[in-house]
Amino acid sequence: MKGRADLSLVYCDAPALCAGVFTQNVVCAAPVTYCKERLAEKNTTRAIMTNAGQANAVTGADGYSDALKCAEALGKELGVPPEDVLLLSTGVIGHRIKMDELIAALPELVAQLGGEPANALRAATAMTTTDLASKSVALEIMIDGVPVRLGSACKGSGMIHPNMATMLGIVTCDAPVDGDIWQQMLSSATKRSFNMITVDGDTSTNDTVLALSSGCANIPTITDIHSKAGKLLQQSLDALMQGMAKSIAWDGEGATCLVEIQVTGASTQDDASLVAKSIAGSMLTKSAVFGHDPNWGRIACAAGYSGAKFSPKSLDICIGSHALMQKGTPLDFDASAISSYLKDCSDAHGKVTIFVKLGDGPGEATAWGCDLSYDYVKINAEYTT
Amino acid sequence: MKGRADLSLVYCDAPALCAGVFTQNVVCAAPVTYCKERLAEKNTTRAIMTNAGQANAVTGADGYSDALKCAEALGKELGVPPEDVLLLSTGVIGHRIKMDELIAALPELVAQLGGEPANALRAATAMTTTDLASKSVALEIMIDGVPVRLGSACKGSGMIHPNMATMLGIVTCDAPVDGDIWQQMLSSATKRSFNMITVDGDTSTNDTVLALSSGCANIPTITDIHSKAGKLLQQSLDALMQGMAKSIAWDGEGATCLVEIQVTGASTQDDASLVAKSIAGSMLTKSAVFGHDPNWGRIACAAGYSGAKFSPKSLDICIGSHALMQKGTPLDFDASAISSYLKDCSDAHGKVTIFVKLGDGPGEATAWGCDLSYDYVKINAEYTT
Repeated sequence: MKGRADLSLVYCDAPALCAGVFTQNVVCAAPVTYCKERLAEKNTTRAIMTNAGQANAVTGADGYSDALKCAEALGKELGVPPEDVLLLSTGVIGHRIKMDELIAALPELVAQLGGEPANALRAATAMTTTDLASKSVALEIMIDGVPVRLGSACKGSGMIHPNMATMLGIVTCDAPVDGDIWQQMLSSATKRSFNMITVDGDTSTNDTVLALSSGCANIPTITDIHSKAGKLLQQSLDALMQGMAKSIAWDGEGATCLVEIQVTGASTQDDASLVAKSIAGSMLTKSAVFGHDPNWGRIACAAGYSGAKFSPKSLDICIGSHALMQKGTPLDFDASAISSYLKDCSDAHGKVTIFVKLGDGPGEATAWGCDLSYDYVKINAEYTT
Repeated sequence: MKGRADLSLVYCDAPALCAGVFTQNVVCAAPVTYCKERLAEKNTTRAIMTNAGQANAVTGADGYSDALKCAEALGKELGVPPEDVLLLSTGVIGHRIKMDELIAALPELVAQLGGEPANALRAATAMTTTDLASKSVALEIMIDGVPVRLGSACKGSGMIHPNMATMLGIVTCDAPVDGDIWQQMLSSATKRSFNMITVDGDTSTNDTVLALSSGCANIPTITDIHSKAGKLLQQSLDALMQGMAKSIAWDGEGATCLVEIQVTGASTQDDASLVAKSIAGSMLTKSAVFGHDPNWGRIACAAGYSGAKFSPKSLDICIGSHALMQKGTPLDFDASAISSYLKDCSDAHGKVTIFVKLGDGPGEATAWGCDLSYDYVKINAEYTT
């Protein structure tokens, strides 16, 4: 699409441990079914191929058969068994993969494999659809004095309201980790990253995050999530995936800014999550941010219908450094100063921060979303036809 | 606001039985708290006053005290105790009622009371905020050969995603009904009407429906919901409130058309409701309708993440009279004919119907929403400032 590459390939010289999280949408895409089946058989893989343009979702038995053919053809090209190939698709729901074009492109795709950073960036770009920017994050940490590397690429943009995982994400790591621990780490990091973003409340049919660990770093295998090395790897994975999650919300369809909702003082972390996600997803709050309108009433309202329990009499709300409500009582505030803050964030395509304190409980959570602009409607009124 | 009346009054010569349903938003408005308290003390009332412009929500102790003063002043003007006055407010959250102007307007408001239809229409208009049309429905039915009348008025437009009730609605009836039965009938009708609409997924702080029954019709008091008269009254209340609910969705902020989602074949009615409401609320489906785009993939996707259990292999989808998917398999369809259907509905500000069959179960439900247009964003980016 748009005359640019729409295939990308992540390949590991050795079998890499692979953990995955997938959409909970009942209507899930053929590649999602395919990946779940492969990972149920064994928890390692050699390659992940992503095609952008056709989601291969709601394509029936033919779509599943297309996925099998893709794996077979790519396996042959790479010299690995087809079951060592995982697949991700993104694009228009109901459209089948253009098989002839895809198969013909495989030799060049495989020939391009290599260690150059430019190739990793090209892969991240090839995954995108309506995204305006490619999304990749890399980290190097030291465990027992040995450098351990994590990398990731993802795509987002629309149909973003993850429940278990978000659109497509790939994480790579060279730390040796026990398989169950690696899946547990991915699930925990997903809960604090991709499951805390929303663009439009629509949970996609193709959401998948796959996390590979080659085990090539020369440290003892991590078998305890509470060990020093385990904690450090979990923190790094959290940071990596939160970076990716934020970049997806920042580049939400039509967005002029990233909106970060920080909730504190909730009775539980679950209540804090409910409130943060409810505000991030409120169409009225999103429209107000787009209009540079310090409309704290809509923020309080969205907190109120989130399902979390709290007393409205202990509610504090700030936008940026400006306090708008304290202990449930509206404050006098400088509306034009807050409006300028929102406008500046928007002009720079930066970040708007909304702080909400619900009481004196220990529960905290942060969610990310974006504003709702005319362009969101324009993009989605014109996407297929 | 806009130089038109923003106060309305419904008055009953005798104490009228009053049932109510209210927002489940934790952050609820002062008049909601006030009405709940009055109805907990006794289940009759004489008058309901509505002010539009200030929601009197998140206004703290002062806002509640304003509500008490309103009831006292109106009670004095009408010659009834203040506890026989109920209150509804709608408008900007966090804004207190303009008490001086309101109190000064009461003598004229009371003087205008009378049986002329023009006054009822004026009351319905005075309740509105960003609504483009006033909303009222009236029905006359025969019970035991005696005419029984039901009337209603409501307002909607934005922050519409009822959970228990929608924005403001008033129902009047002259059938004598047992108090518990009347509340039960209102709750049932609410579930099938106001709780099945969505404009933007935001549940308001002020949602209230009050249903009055004067008992003036000369029929025996209805004490059994399963009696012939009970069933007839319930059906009439359903029809009345569905009419109101549809008019709210039709007049959703920025809407160019009403979108009706009819779901059949679900395992249970709850599953059918989940799917119908999920599709009605999907921003991507709403954007596609605005763009006249027969994007059935988004409809299937929204059904899939609704939380209902069904097999994607038994999914049928039609838009108007056009079949797009049968038994989970996409059909060839005439995209330009469906696009014309959507455009015609939109040009006439009419109704788009989407039919979804999930399987062969007995569960059925209908939900109503509207499309998502540039004007929704415009209205809500510019509402307070």
